[in-house]
Amino acid sequence: MGPHVVPRQLVWLSRWQAVCARGASVQHRTRAGVSRIPSLLSPGGALGASPLVRRSSSSTPPGAPEVVLTQQRYPVTRLPFSAVSAEDLAAFERILPGGVVTDPEVLEASNVDWLRTVRGCSKVLLRPRTSQEVARILRYCHERNLAVNPQGGNTGMVGGSVPVFDEIILSTTLMNRIISFHSVSGTLVCQAGCVLEELSQYVEERGFVMPLDLGAKGSCHIGGNVATNAGGLRFLRYGSLHGTVLGLEVVLADGTVLDCLTSLRKDNTGYDLKQLFIGSEGTLGVITAVSIQCPPKPRAVNVAFLGCPGFAEVLQTFSSGKELLGEILSAYEFMDAECMWLVTHHLHLASPVQESPFYVLVETSGSRAGHDAEKLSDFLERALSSGLVTDGTVATDQTRLKALWALRERISEALSRDGYVYKYDLSLPTERLYDLVSDLRARLGSQAKHVVGYGHLGDGNLHLNVTSEAFSPSLLADLEPYVYEWTARQRGSVSAEHGLGFKKRGVLSYSKPPEALRLMQQLKALLDPKGILNPYKTLPVQA
Amino acid sequence: MGPHVVPRQLVWLSRWQAVCARGASVQHRTRAGVSRIPSLLSPGGALGASPLVRRSSSSTPPGAPEVVLTQQRYPVTRLPFSAVSAEDLAAFERILPGGVVTDPEVLEASNVDWLRTVRGCSKVLLRPRTSQEVARILRYCHERNLAVNPQGGNTGMVGGSVPVFDEIILSTTLMNRIISFHSVSGTLVCQAGCVLEELSQYVEERGFVMPLDLGAKGSCHIGGNVATNAGGLRFLRYGSLHGTVLGLEVVLADGTVLDCLTSLRKDNTGYDLKQLFIGSEGTLGVITAVSIQCPPKPRAVNVAFLGCPGFAEVLQTFSSGKELLGEILSAYEFMDAECMWLVTHHLHLASPVQESPFYVLVETSGSRAGHDAEKLSDFLERALSSGLVTDGTVATDQTRLKALWALRERISEALSRDGYVYKYDLSLPTERLYDLVSDLRARLGSQAKHVVGYGHLGDGNLHLNVTSEAFSPSLLADLEPYVYEWTARQRGSVSAEHGLGFKKRGVLSYSKPPEALRLMQQLKALLDPKGILNPYKTLPVQA
Repeated sequence: MGPHVVPRQLVWLSRWQAVCARGASVQHRTRAGVSRIPSLLSPGGALGASPLVRRSSSSTPPGAPEVVLTQQRYPVTRLPFSAVSAEDLAAFERILPGGVVTDPEVLEASNVDWLRTVRGCSKVLLRPRTSQEVARILRYCHERNLAVNPQGGNTGMVGGSVPVFDEIILSTTLMNRIISFHSVSGTLVCQAGCVLEELSQYVEERGFVMPLDLGAKGSCHIGGNVATNAGGLRFLRYGSLHGTVLGLEVVLADGTVLDCLTSLRKDNTGYDLKQLFIGSEGTLGVITAVSIQCPPKPRAVNVAFLGCPGFAEVLQTFSSGKELLGEILSAYEFMDAECMWLVTHHLHLASPVQESPFYVLVETSGSRAGHDAEKLSDFLERALSSGLVTDGTVATDQTRLKALWALRERISEALSRDGYVYKYDLSLPTERLYDLVSDLRARLGSQAKHVVGYGHLGDGNLHLNVTSEAFSPSLLADLEPYVYEWTARQRGSVSAEHGLGFKKRGVLSYSKPPEALRLMQQLKALLDPKGILNPYKTLPVQA
Repeated sequence: MGPHVVPRQLVWLSRWQAVCARGASVQHRTRAGVSRIPSLLSPGGALGASPLVRRSSSSTPPGAPEVVLTQQRYPVTRLPFSAVSAEDLAAFERILPGGVVTDPEVLEASNVDWLRTVRGCSKVLLRPRTSQEVARILRYCHERNLAVNPQGGNTGMVGGSVPVFDEIILSTTLMNRIISFHSVSGTLVCQAGCVLEELSQYVEERGFVMPLDLGAKGSCHIGGNVATNAGGLRFLRYGSLHGTVLGLEVVLADGTVLDCLTSLRKDNTGYDLKQLFIGSEGTLGVITAVSIQCPPKPRAVNVAFLGCPGFAEVLQTFSSGKELLGEILSAYEFMDAECMWLVTHHLHLASPVQESPFYVLVETSGSRAGHDAEKLSDFLERALSSGLVTDGTVATDQTRLKALWALRERISEALSRDGYVYKYDLSLPTERLYDLVSDLRARLGSQAKHVVGYGHLGDGNLHLNVTSEAFSPSLLADLEPYVYEWTARQRGSVSAEHGLGFKKRGVLSYSKPPEALRLMQQLKALLDPKGILNPYKTLPVQA
């Protein structure tokens, strides 16, 4: 360690309280012109947030209000798909003996998203075990013009994983078999319904890690991760799934099985078709198996939590970290002072460093503890001596690592306790990333309780959140389309990692030009001409 | 350094001779049933091979024979595109004043591939400077049903970058402007015609490196690299272009400009359309600008050259390297004893280690020389003491690094001096990678002079080469389809990094199922309904 940084006793750990995020803080508010909205302990702006919460589907929590049907809350019209008949159920039962669920109690959990914001009214849930069963189901549905909602762990943030009307829910829950693991190359091949955390455990026992990690890992399925191009906590280090996914098996809308399930790192024989399905949110095909490259497991992990005097210093500290930490830098997160106020005030966490305008969390992951500690020490010494950082603490053991991470990860939980939350998940050029927060703070004035910015700075990903005592149409009108237009002017993304699903498909045009929207529609028409796969999602409503 | 490994005086360096690879060893051979084939100093099986050769397009080398027209050598029929008329030339001149080339002398270099194996007979070469000019050209060609051959640096290995008949050559040579570089994030945005080596120099001066490096870097264009999904020497460390390319601007066949040129690391707003064009070899659109993520420049690079007693030890040494070198392992290449014989015999290079059945080249790239040396030393000590490695040498300065790399990179040059060369570029599961070489050696017996295996073991990429005194139809019949079928049985790739272009489009079905071929054809029909973009390439001939 450098002389300026002494790891402190993290006494504040003992003050922590376990908080159940589901159904613990239920309030009703009224949104103008829409129906009643059940508020909730809103999860993080990031898939990676709220790791304390296992996002398992479940029945309505005791005391929680019913979630209003999506078709009642939003202006959306059912497309002319067939309705599921008794004959259809009999046909499904022949394809999947024992795998056809029509019990309303069981269906409840699959009709409602885990945020409890949207609700479908599907009457049937299908649980295939094999790709061939998925193929037979889709062939049948395509023939009969029945709409299908593919569903993994149902942990999505944008209402993409539950039906809007009565779409058949096609669950990958029972497709949870590991097909192969290569102990030299680290290539994992598995069915789409494998739970990310279980895969992590499996490969970690063999000296590797999954190239992605999310707060929802205890519930989310790898197929869903790939279908939504999940980002998460390891993105800075291991990059996008477009680079780490080696192969996919996909069942197309008409039941065709597209076998691109290779385990090859290099394959330049024709178009890389699997890329089409990564991030297509189940609208172009159903991913049934995944081949993915697992990197070797790091032997040493360190986390430093630092205070910075300004956003310019946050950026300079990042540059310095990239230079001095080099290949072991694995995360660079930031949060502003208002975020720290929220987690200390609402969650009674204690800040491990002196009060600062900004805080950064720097994580290193490497193969040799001594080398990593030396690099980190040099980085911290320079950051402190140059004034980029005014205070800091470091953790190396699992408990303290998690404690420091919690300051960043539980911001969303703290926000939900602050009032009504307006959430935005944006990609922006890093140097302008915080300007939007400052702009909004000035623009909104006393209308907002808090305007806060935090997120994955290393990835240029800002989680912008605004709170008010209750939902306010005038505040919303000051936020939208202002935030989207501001983002568009910077050529940013209005959905960095959450995708579009049902709830964000209307803002797509802020990040994509008309030519791209047209090509998206053309690809949809090519691969799913009847539009039966995850309708009402991802693509903008056609004029 | 570990006690067993003493860096030797690389005295053999002085024995090297500079060899001009172009036109130095010209022989004529006759392929049964086809016309005369000009042999050549055949370049490496890999794009990364033969770094000593600048692959610039040029006129026929002195003394080199004419390259036979592709339409005469191969059974291929011209599709019913229009022929370029005087009116067309006048129209192009209006779009590109001074940018229309019809001089046969100048056209010669663009009609022939750098391997001098295929030749088109285009009468016009267009040199736009902007995407809008490309758009106007394609709109015109689409309207007039004129075929277009997009061309970057013309360094491809499979005849994809030159016309087959009289396609208009659309060169990106003058589209060589750097649009922006972000000094914090390392994001480079540039026009498609920027030469890779110039981009490397530009970003290295700013503390970053390009995420790809190729032997052809002095000539190849970044647009061509992306269009062919180039692999190369940094693949093991920085991964595929599918992960490092952030955005593309592409002009579609009808002249539509598709602007997906974002610089965002994360963007989940709809389908990731740019992925369609990475590796599509100019058949789906013309890439006009590229946004790419550059990693920080490593401060320390080491190369170890080691002898292994068997292929099992090559694999185990790789596992050990991944464990002990961790995040600094940047290349793991292998070559067999016959390769070493070829480079020592034909090129008079000296082996820096004792004779061994196999050799591996291990490269590390890291941010701290002392740490890297310590990791490397521990790795070498374990490899030697456990018998995985029997001898070795290490280099850290640029000259010696290049000398060790040359042993691996000049294999293809040595092969070309050994006789007629049958080349295969395959991806295979690493544990079976060398079995094919052994199988073939037994199968071919005395028919072959040498059957050698080398390549990017870390990526599962085998360069399999067979030599004979002269071209032999019976030897070819013993090789093909045997090699392709063997590869297909392992679910390997019959083109790991070279792509398909004109010469390999017939073997696509060995690596892709019929459903994938059909979807490729459908995508081609969607994006280029008249088929004017790079016809006769990539896609199999339709029945």
